[in-house]
Amino acid sequence: MTERIQDVAHLGRIELLTPKLERSRWFFETLLGMEVAHDEGKSLYLRGYGDYAQATLKLTESARPGVGVVSWRTASPEALARRVAAIQQAGRGEGWKSQEFGRGQSFGFRDPDGHRMDVYYDEQKYVAPPHLRSTLKNLPMKYTARGVDVRRIDHLALLARDVAANRVFAQRVLGFALREQVLFDGGKTELGSWLSPSPVHHQVAYVTDVKGATGRLHHISLWVDNREDVLRAADVLAENGVFIEAGPSKHNNSQGFYLYSYEPGGNRVEIYSGSYLVFAPDWEVVTWNEEERGTGVYWGSPLPESFIAYGTPDVVEEAALVRKIPVFDPV
Amino acid sequence: MTERIQDVAHLGRIELLTPKLERSRWFFETLLGMEVAHDEGKSLYLRGYGDYAQATLKLTESARPGVGVVSWRTASPEALARRVAAIQQAGRGEGWKSQEFGRGQSFGFRDPDGHRMDVYYDEQKYVAPPHLRSTLKNLPMKYTARGVDVRRIDHLALLARDVAANRVFAQRVLGFALREQVLFDGGKTELGSWLSPSPVHHQVAYVTDVKGATGRLHHISLWVDNREDVLRAADVLAENGVFIEAGPSKHNNSQGFYLYSYEPGGNRVEIYSGSYLVFAPDWEVVTWNEEERGTGVYWGSPLPESFIAYGTPDVVEEAALVRKIPVFDPV
Amino acid sequence: MTERIQDVAHLGRIELLTPKLERSRWFFETLLGMEVAHDEGKSLYLRGYGDYAQATLKLTESARPGVGVVSWRTASPEALARRVAAIQQAGRGEGWKSQEFGRGQSFGFRDPDGHRMDVYYDEQKYVAPPHLRSTLKNLPMKYTARGVDVRRIDHLALLARDVAANRVFAQRVLGFALREQVLFDGGKTELGSWLSPSPVHHQVAYVTDVKGATGRLHHISLWVDNREDVLRAADVLAENGVFIEAGPSKHNNSQGFYLYSYEPGGNRVEIYSGSYLVFAPDWEVVTWNEEERGTGVYWGSPLPESFIAYGTPDVVEEAALVRKIPVFDPV
Amino acid sequence: MTERIQDVAHLGRIELLTPKLERSRWFFETLLGMEVAHDEGKSLYLRGYGDYAQATLKLTESARPGVGVVSWRTASPEALARRVAAIQQAGRGEGWKSQEFGRGQSFGFRDPDGHRMDVYYDEQKYVAPPHLRSTLKNLPMKYTARGVDVRRIDHLALLARDVAANRVFAQRVLGFALREQVLFDGGKTELGSWLSPSPVHHQVAYVTDVKGATGRLHHISLWVDNREDVLRAADVLAENGVFIEAGPSKHNNSQGFYLYSYEPGGNRVEIYSGSYLVFAPDWEVVTWNEEERGTGVYWGSPLPESFIAYGTPDVVEEAALVRKIPVFDPV
Repeated sequence: MTERIQDVAHLGRIELLTPKLERSRWFFETLLGMEVAHDEGKSLYLRGYGDYAQATLKLTESARPGVGVVSWRTASPEALARRVAAIQQAGRGEGWKSQEFGRGQSFGFRDPDGHRMDVYYDEQKYVAPPHLRSTLKNLPMKYTARGVDVRRIDHLALLARDVAANRVFAQRVLGFALREQVLFDGGKTELGSWLSPSPVHHQVAYVTDVKGATGRLHHISLWVDNREDVLRAADVLAENGVFIEAGPSKHNNSQGFYLYSYEPGGNRVEIYSGSYLVFAPDWEVVTWNEEERGTGVYWGSPLPESFIAYGTPDVVEEAALVRKIPVFDPV
Repeated sequence: MTERIQDVAHLGRIELLTPKLERSRWFFETLLGMEVAHDEGKSLYLRGYGDYAQATLKLTESARPGVGVVSWRTASPEALARRVAAIQQAGRGEGWKSQEFGRGQSFGFRDPDGHRMDVYYDEQKYVAPPHLRSTLKNLPMKYTARGVDVRRIDHLALLARDVAANRVFAQRVLGFALREQVLFDGGKTELGSWLSPSPVHHQVAYVTDVKGATGRLHHISLWVDNREDVLRAADVLAENGVFIEAGPSKHNNSQGFYLYSYEPGGNRVEIYSGSYLVFAPDWEVVTWNEEERGTGVYWGSPLPESFIAYGTPDVVEEAALVRKIPVFDPV
Repeated sequence: MTERIQDVAHLGRIELLTPKLERSRWFFETLLGMEVAHDEGKSLYLRGYGDYAQATLKLTESARPGVGVVSWRTASPEALARRVAAIQQAGRGEGWKSQEFGRGQSFGFRDPDGHRMDVYYDEQKYVAPPHLRSTLKNLPMKYTARGVDVRRIDHLALLARDVAANRVFAQRVLGFALREQVLFDGGKTELGSWLSPSPVHHQVAYVTDVKGATGRLHHISLWVDNREDVLRAADVLAENGVFIEAGPSKHNNSQGFYLYSYEPGGNRVEIYSGSYLVFAPDWEVVTWNEEERGTGVYWGSPLPESFIAYGTPDVVEEAALVRKIPVFDPV
Repeated sequence: MTERIQDVAHLGRIELLTPKLERSRWFFETLLGMEVAHDEGKSLYLRGYGDYAQATLKLTESARPGVGVVSWRTASPEALARRVAAIQQAGRGEGWKSQEFGRGQSFGFRDPDGHRMDVYYDEQKYVAPPHLRSTLKNLPMKYTARGVDVRRIDHLALLARDVAANRVFAQRVLGFALREQVLFDGGKTELGSWLSPSPVHHQVAYVTDVKGATGRLHHISLWVDNREDVLRAADVLAENGVFIEAGPSKHNNSQGFYLYSYEPGGNRVEIYSGSYLVFAPDWEVVTWNEEERGTGVYWGSPLPESFIAYGTPDVVEEAALVRKIPVFDPV
């Protein structure tokens, strides 16, 4: 056994592309309770009340929805150097980028499926303005109790034409640990893989793109502390006419307690709690075959067809799906 | 900045000493819902339904209560070798011990306050017998829904004559990260320090022993997934005539949502949820002075006097405290 | 406006028929945590920990599943006399029955759809044996924390060929208040009506029997205090291989937070929380048309086909449905 | 046995007096999430999202805090006539009052301790303006998810020099059912009595005024659906620097899950869930003696001294208490 690389500390930031920036802002700020830390040109920088960084979610206006850059923070400058070298050696590097709001320079690359990513170390810590200071010294920001009030970003799921190739890249080049897999056809078809750089169950999942496309986003996931908070999120979304695609229910793989909605730009957003931490350094990957995977849930209704097929930036073509969506706009 | 050592993966096992083994078994097995995985001589080996190891809590019959050996699992055999070398270099090593139930050989040592500890790598994974197999493939054991049904061990708090000495040892020799501190007298008196080898907020806390004793235990802590589960635990304990010393309430430091009880042997046991994960590799230690620390709670009543003074093995002398304890024995 | 009759105090007891008495006992006693207060011949008498009466659920062995007698307790002996007179006047009386376990004589009748019912006043209060005494003086029985541990019976839903006829009977003869209705075809078709003798939202619902049968049971409903308790119930049922037909989710009408399972005898059982109390004496019935009713849920997946069609005693013919049921028997 | 009078349907409205109207408004509107339905002169009319009436809480500017008029809605006009006659016969009537916002004329009276009350029947139902319409047809108003967002008023507790006299008045003249009592000195001293006109455990409590004063208010109580909602309320209050006097904890009598705070005007406000419904028409009053009553809690810390002594309008004299209150004003 060789020791696992522990150079990436955690998922640092997700950029979401949206054709409806103001409507997306309403969703994340007013309904989910996130805070807009910075507004710059076509981009908004948001954060959950528990995120230590300035911003962990970047919304960028774009012709079509989808995922922009996925950013991974390393454990140290040395770790960053090592990962950059490994990425370059893998032939996937796209060079250094200058700093942007809240963080220093980063090194860009693409995963085998073409999703844009970067690694970085320099990160500014959020310092709340007076009206957003928490009475808890160890909380970066006040719990505002506005809408859902998500605590922090948790993970994202990417669609990929070749799950195995991306999974191997994440393991070998980024040093992520593989936690669970869905393997069909007697193990020959890798439908999905869940990976993480930390004891958090997964911070990235790769799932087969049934359309054979590349670079698509399945969902981003935002954390709340208790299952009851996910139920409350459903109340908040339903009261505001926002589509809930699936849940609140409990997944079998990951044991995640989930709710899936679409933000007005068309990107799928999960409100999430539960799941489990993985402490074992010699964790044995949990695999699920066709029968074990079943309908993808531990309890709750089977996931709908759209959950398998739909991913951004494909919202425009999804006429059938769009019909299922009642109202994005509040009264 | 030097990179943090990440050789210890997690808290692996806690041994509790109890003068009332059968009564302690009733507490952990019947009320808290833990499973007795093994029974050997004067020791019982227990586990939460989410623990991947054979056993994470060892109860050993003893004349007096208190903490026995605290075991830390390393991330690899190489990491074990490195930590053993560091411990020996620090002059605290006590030599290799042969295997015991569920794990291979371990290397014993004492922290500066004299608490017995060990590090080890070889650990057997729990394989549930048929009647305890979960319908969730990624759960080591069935959720039995018996009593509180704690999921896993989370951390422990040790009393120490010199908090700083133990904290420095945990940082430098074991590689733990310091998360929060209570510093009085303008920072000169270190009342408590919370440390962890992983993103879990803390897996060990050192708190000043106000009696100036050594080797004492403040509490062990067992995890449940939701705050409501802690409330349910209070219902279960109250229905069974078991003393609740404090909570359910919310700490300011750690943000932990807690309940403190004493198991029949006299050791303090916390049922715990909430808190927060620490992902920042450059986490800035959160310090609390006299005023900020206040009564030790974020909301809920101030912690009682016994919470400061009482620690095992001192139960026998605690006549005043004992009077406050209604009934340990069920009707 | 005439004053509403308040002669019936509450739903007192439900008799369920089951072809698998021992398996049904396992479901209600071991999984749902109800207590068997009495065992007599082919019948078992059970209770939730919060029920004040000796027994509120009677299981009777029978060739086929379904509902036996539904019993309503009156507010006084005088109220009983008045209701008996009204029932007789309506031509539905079937005469006095001698006492059975836990209660005195009752007066039997049938609702227009043929479901057997009775009214009674004499009821014995439960006195817990020593090992089941609660430490709460106002709780009839210890909270045992066994499995789901439902608190009390809440209501039942009956299928009927003619909802309107049964609803009118319940209003005029029993004095129940009408709370909500599902009216299709511009109000001409009464699909369902929810009624109650007390501020509890409904204690009986009449829903159109899509098969045109009579006397069928849709479900009985058991109360837990928090939504999180319903989620825990799903965990308990899933761990024991028990079929969950729908939920946990939230209804639009009644606002009930529900989970529907089938007990081994084939009867549908709901675990239930939330909903709302109705205090207004001049409550305006809330009606839902086709569009408003939608899929029958506020959030969560649409209710499955079986939810509309299936009712006991029809389990034998439900081959298609039975295939959807994984395992009733524990490993 | 004589049949219980069921003329009063429920607690209809509570008027609170406050010397700091704008600050009180901030507390109820911004923190507790209540809606201001009407603003008239020195009074504000508020409502919870689940209240069917226009307003259930009236805040009136006054030199000192305390309770104004407590209003009870009857089940019918006939019931109103009967209660007015009974009140007049008891010599406590103070005559008819003209309508005020949201309701028709009412008949004023005083309880034996001098608290002002009235009975009325005419009540307007709330019709939400477009931006506050719920997507649930059976919900009078949108769940705004602002702060705590209490659902409805539940009850109030009044201090009285002679608990027995007031309890007897509530039973005989108003027709309330007695649910629980705290009786000291072998039953000779009636410390507190909990009464209700409906299955809700209590809608008014009379508790001995240890200062021997009259007309004082102990607290008003606002309902949330789950225990977790009370915990969230504690988070919201703590984040806004608002004093929490006791809880979240669980009472032994009533089984209520509570949190007590003071609104800026000085009145004690409870956020409340749990408890239990009373269905038995022949309910046997649960009595608690000194030993059984204990510290007044089932689990959680003993109630503080202020909980016994403090009641409005006495805030001014409560210098010792005021010092314990950190900050009412938000930053």
